[in-house]
Amino acid sequence: MAKANEFVKEIADIREDFPQWYTDVVLKTQLVDYGPVKGTMVIRPYGYALWENIQRELDARFKATGHENAYFPMLIPYSFLTKEAEHVEGFAPEVALVTHVGNNELPEKLVVRPTSETIICEMYAKWVQSYRDLPVLMNQWANVVRWEKTTRPFLRTSEFLWQEGHTLHATQQEAEEETLRMLNVYEEFSRNVLAIPMFTGKKSEKEKFAGAAATYSIEAMMLDGKSLQSGTSHYLGQNFSSAFNIRYLDKDGTHKNPFQTSWGVSTRLIGAVIMAHGDERGLKLPPYVAPVQAVIIPIAAHKAGVLEKARELQETLKKAGIRVKTDESDNSPGWKFNEYEMKGVPVRIEIGPRDIENGVITVARRDRAGEKVTLPLLDPVQGIQTLLQDIHNNMYADALAFRDSHVKTVHTMEELGNAVNSQNFALSMWCGDRACEDKIKDAFQASSRNMPFDQSPVGDKCVCCGKKAKHKIYWGKAY
Amino acid sequence: MAKANEFVKEIADIREDFPQWYTDVVLKTQLVDYGPVKGTMVIRPYGYALWENIQRELDARFKATGHENAYFPMLIPYSFLTKEAEHVEGFAPEVALVTHVGNNELPEKLVVRPTSETIICEMYAKWVQSYRDLPVLMNQWANVVRWEKTTRPFLRTSEFLWQEGHTLHATQQEAEEETLRMLNVYEEFSRNVLAIPMFTGKKSEKEKFAGAAATYSIEAMMLDGKSLQSGTSHYLGQNFSSAFNIRYLDKDGTHKNPFQTSWGVSTRLIGAVIMAHGDERGLKLPPYVAPVQAVIIPIAAHKAGVLEKARELQETLKKAGIRVKTDESDNSPGWKFNEYEMKGVPVRIEIGPRDIENGVITVARRDRAGEKVTLPLLDPVQGIQTLLQDIHNNMYADALAFRDSHVKTVHTMEELGNAVNSQNFALSMWCGDRACEDKIKDAFQASSRNMPFDQSPVGDKCVCCGKKAKHKIYWGKAY
Repeated sequence: MAKANEFVKEIADIREDFPQWYTDVVLKTQLVDYGPVKGTMVIRPYGYALWENIQRELDARFKATGHENAYFPMLIPYSFLTKEAEHVEGFAPEVALVTHVGNNELPEKLVVRPTSETIICEMYAKWVQSYRDLPVLMNQWANVVRWEKTTRPFLRTSEFLWQEGHTLHATQQEAEEETLRMLNVYEEFSRNVLAIPMFTGKKSEKEKFAGAAATYSIEAMMLDGKSLQSGTSHYLGQNFSSAFNIRYLDKDGTHKNPFQTSWGVSTRLIGAVIMAHGDERGLKLPPYVAPVQAVIIPIAAHKAGVLEKARELQETLKKAGIRVKTDESDNSPGWKFNEYEMKGVPVRIEIGPRDIENGVITVARRDRAGEKVTLPLLDPVQGIQTLLQDIHNNMYADALAFRDSHVKTVHTMEELGNAVNSQNFALSMWCGDRACEDKIKDAFQASSRNMPFDQSPVGDKCVCCGKKAKHKIYWGKAY
Repeated sequence: MAKANEFVKEIADIREDFPQWYTDVVLKTQLVDYGPVKGTMVIRPYGYALWENIQRELDARFKATGHENAYFPMLIPYSFLTKEAEHVEGFAPEVALVTHVGNNELPEKLVVRPTSETIICEMYAKWVQSYRDLPVLMNQWANVVRWEKTTRPFLRTSEFLWQEGHTLHATQQEAEEETLRMLNVYEEFSRNVLAIPMFTGKKSEKEKFAGAAATYSIEAMMLDGKSLQSGTSHYLGQNFSSAFNIRYLDKDGTHKNPFQTSWGVSTRLIGAVIMAHGDERGLKLPPYVAPVQAVIIPIAAHKAGVLEKARELQETLKKAGIRVKTDESDNSPGWKFNEYEMKGVPVRIEIGPRDIENGVITVARRDRAGEKVTLPLLDPVQGIQTLLQDIHNNMYADALAFRDSHVKTVHTMEELGNAVNSQNFALSMWCGDRACEDKIKDAFQASSRNMPFDQSPVGDKCVCCGKKAKHKIYWGKAY
């Protein structure tokens, strides 16, 4: 059982052609399809269920930290974009513009939001009057459009789904605390829900968000050793609040611009899940976001009692809150084994006449091929729950071990090149100059990822120019 | 207590100026604000929380009836719109068009979706091959854009949020059953969650969706006697499936076009809630969608133990799944009473030193001014839950009684005019001709609402032309 069949063969070899493996997997598991307009994607039900689980887990965390959801218009007057100088420079080339309605030209062209700082600031300026109105802690779940030249499903698409938090605070300290609080929420969520270890740290000036005072990121290592920036949290200072004239009357009787943050993660996280955990058989989904956590496969389904027991089992598990599905189709068990392995379902439950006779179910786990256990047919819930937690822990440990073995501390350009060219991150000291970043990019197509909070030095000279180092920083090829 | 204060006075009199009352209420309760682009709205946290509750309740019903969520691109090639002749005629004048990205003109202009039939059909044509692929039961939660001349928050806005179900079936019968199944889901949801009675029925040819074979609607009566079309369910026949060449190989070896449905409700439902239930004091929110179901107001909060007991009570209620908030601000209790009445919070809990001494809490209900009960401080959960259910039932009964007393059966044009001009729906027989609909529209600015499933006649002649009647139908002024 669980032998390679035609389905598995249709997926490119993960070791030989990782990009093709990715494309094969996302299409064949029906996570996603290409939309008719270049660069767009259709998120199919299996992919969207993954997104719904991500949303639910994140939304609970945002609310637990005091945020409320709101919804701002998608169409933004072009003039708003131009109010913050760096912001317009960063986004103007890739914004989609609405110029007409029906046959009529609009008086001012409208931007389809690439992000919502500008329109949200416009509203905040109206709503915030007094220190009593602070802090403002809002989040929005929305679609955004950024026209990208090279696109890949989930990783980079013209339209994507995301959440964007936008907060205002009375003091710089509060705003900086919020920036890091939400970065930590992302890291904790990634670890405990997606089973992905993240490097958290500060981005370089070159890589920060257009209009931010400082950008922090979570960076994940994919199985090809490349980095995926998986979320960002920005400290915006007073850049936008002064550009949009958000002012509040403070206790001391003077008017001040509040300090601001914004932070977001997107459907890109689905790409992270795929490329941090997959294997030669296809997807390997972390249990706490898997649309189906356990699939029940009846063996010898035509025999008396098998389907009945399978359905009873499904009801028992469903009532316990486990996302379970029974495949009663007339495909062979072997076909089903392969199908649900490709789809990354964490737990497979086999139930046949012999199992029923013995009062057990046979349980296989996606993360450890060939390993099977039996659980009592009449009391399976706790066993399945423990197994899901164990699979999660195991997947996290695997991802962490993989990452740890693919980070090389480097002291020379040659070492840096060797590291990033053989599927590793490089960790080095850096002088802080953009010229060195550009040089590394030109030489190895690698970019700075982020500067970890633990800055204990691994040397004292910049890996590139040899001058006195200011920072410790990760480098890597990136999506 | 609960006397009129400056807040209540700022709301226009509901009996004298209903439109202004609506505007005052939606703005002052911070449900919504106007967006910077004409006709757009910003849904503020209090309004968005209402929408989240609506979404959660509906989404559970869609999933229970076998539907899965997916997400399709927002930008649609203009050519798609033109494939179904009636569809393009209906939507072309009001679609927003993306023509440029940055400084570059696009090769084909793109439509910001006004609805997604066309792009979804394009994908279905790719996905559906065999009878085994049917039925297809998908839903999408999304934003849509329709440029409207006259706009009002929630009721008619350039951009709004909605859900759109899109299904494919092998037979006409199955598709017609699905159309009515989802209409009934909307009606049941409106009754059991929004506490709004709906007239369900079929729209006239004039009023049906552009491209549908038949449209069914739920129609609610607002407190000014006008009708709000609150949701629609369309039987699309094979109109789109043939235009988009969706074909499946049937068991008999021939290729066929499937039969199709689509159905949707939107943020307009928030408008229905406001205008079906409000009163001179402001909002009156049905408990099962109210963002705050119970507000706790500490009385003499400075006295020892009051805030502690209020917080304990909040924890107790929260754990029981009740959406509860304690207002610890330094505003006076009287101010708070008015504030939360205006915001429509169903239950107000007062807790002060005397209550604590007596081991009780004092509970007032929004739907019956002046009526108060006491509940045991130590064991309040069941009492509050029962009260919420009772408030729901009472609000539904009130709305139903109001509606029943504002429907007039009419047999002449004069009676029809009198009915709709004095805040009623008119129920009459009708020949089925568009000419009579147009005549009634011209004479009284009233439109046909829908034809109820119970067609037991109230006469045999058309109310307008006097010819033999074919249908029984509701008429009304409408939003």
